[in-house]
Amino acid sequence: MTDTLTVAAGQRGPAETEKRDAIIDAAKEHFSRYGYGKTTVSDLAKAIGFSKGYIYKFFESKQAIGEAICTGCLGVIIDAVGVALTESSTPTEKFRRLFKTIIEQSAELFFDDRKLYDIAAASTMENWASSRAYCERVEVILQSIILEGRESGEFERKTPIDEVCRGILLVMQPFMNPMMLQHNLDLLPEAPNEVTNLVLRSLAP
Amino acid sequence: MTDTLTVAAGQRGPAETEKRDAIIDAAKEHFSRYGYGKTTVSDLAKAIGFSKGYIYKFFESKQAIGEAICTGCLGVIIDAVGVALTESSTPTEKFRRLFKTIIEQSAELFFDDRKLYDIAAASTMENWASSRAYCERVEVILQSIILEGRESGEFERKTPIDEVCRGILLVMQPFMNPMMLQHNLDLLPEAPNEVTNLVLRSLAP
Repeated sequence: MTDTLTVAAGQRGPAETEKRDAIIDAAKEHFSRYGYGKTTVSDLAKAIGFSKGYIYKFFESKQAIGEAICTGCLGVIIDAVGVALTESSTPTEKFRRLFKTIIEQSAELFFDDRKLYDIAAASTMENWASSRAYCERVEVILQSIILEGRESGEFERKTPIDEVCRGILLVMQPFMNPMMLQHNLDLLPEAPNEVTNLVLRSLAP
Repeated sequence: MTDTLTVAAGQRGPAETEKRDAIIDAAKEHFSRYGYGKTTVSDLAKAIGFSKGYIYKFFESKQAIGEAICTGCLGVIIDAVGVALTESSTPTEKFRRLFKTIIEQSAELFFDDRKLYDIAAASTMENWASSRAYCERVEVILQSIILEGRESGEFERKTPIDEVCRGILLVMQPFMNPMMLQHNLDLLPEAPNEVTNLVLRSLAP
């Protein structure tokens, strides 16, 4: 989370940002051990050693803390995607790396540290702003890869671009949506590779 | 459920079959009102007016009753698929009707009658024999459609047939797996249509 982003969200400057980030870090640590769903703001305050009033000075609800944690996690995924894309040359390679990175990072972030899954699931189920922003970002990246592939002649150009992107995001759901991914962890990495191959066949000119 | 199937499962003939079916019908009615998860065999016995001992004469556990209900429901889906396929002429048309029928029937069976979803979810999560048999049946039907399309030149022949079928079943998961379908009911029927189109593009020679 950069200062710019935090200030834009209505914060009052670097000093306040540091305090806010300290709450986020402590809350993330606490939720990843004890779960998000069952913890109240009172429990959290007691556990991380801040007063409830102090926490409410920075966050209007438990969900606001959850969203901040989520934004951080999803930012890590998007950053990893950025790195992967700069390492890829062709649109086909970029397409492969986009989903490989998202799936690997999601599995690591939400399931290795099992309790963070709790926040990811709430975020998806309740359609939090953090989750929506992430999905929109992935769609923008996907669309730019598809357009690049159409330009270079690697991908077909007949199907409307919106339909292509929507279809791809739907078929990747079992591995991108944390609630579905939890049932498919055993299938990694082969199954998403096969789905990627299927999609690439569908993109052939 | 035919007598042949029931006899094959270790029953003792038509009279016993009728008694067994009466328990299944009453249990289905009860579960669809009060849910499967929280109902014990004792609750069920009391509610449907049979003794617990009588129920255990026919079923070794609550899951065995659940599996019998599930087999019946999934049989309805497979029968509807059979009808749809006889009405279709080309492999492309058969492919469309296969998934359209499965998704429509699943949404109707498991969600219109909301509490039956409970059994469908348990069946999928716990990988019951009824659920496995259904998945295998769908895979056999899918494979025969793909092979027919390869034969007629409608579908490509380069990709190994097993990989093609596995990939298709994976991308249809968000609409075929009841636990995932529950999150995607709002997207019917457009989203599965778009996924079907994507898959058909991937099958093009």
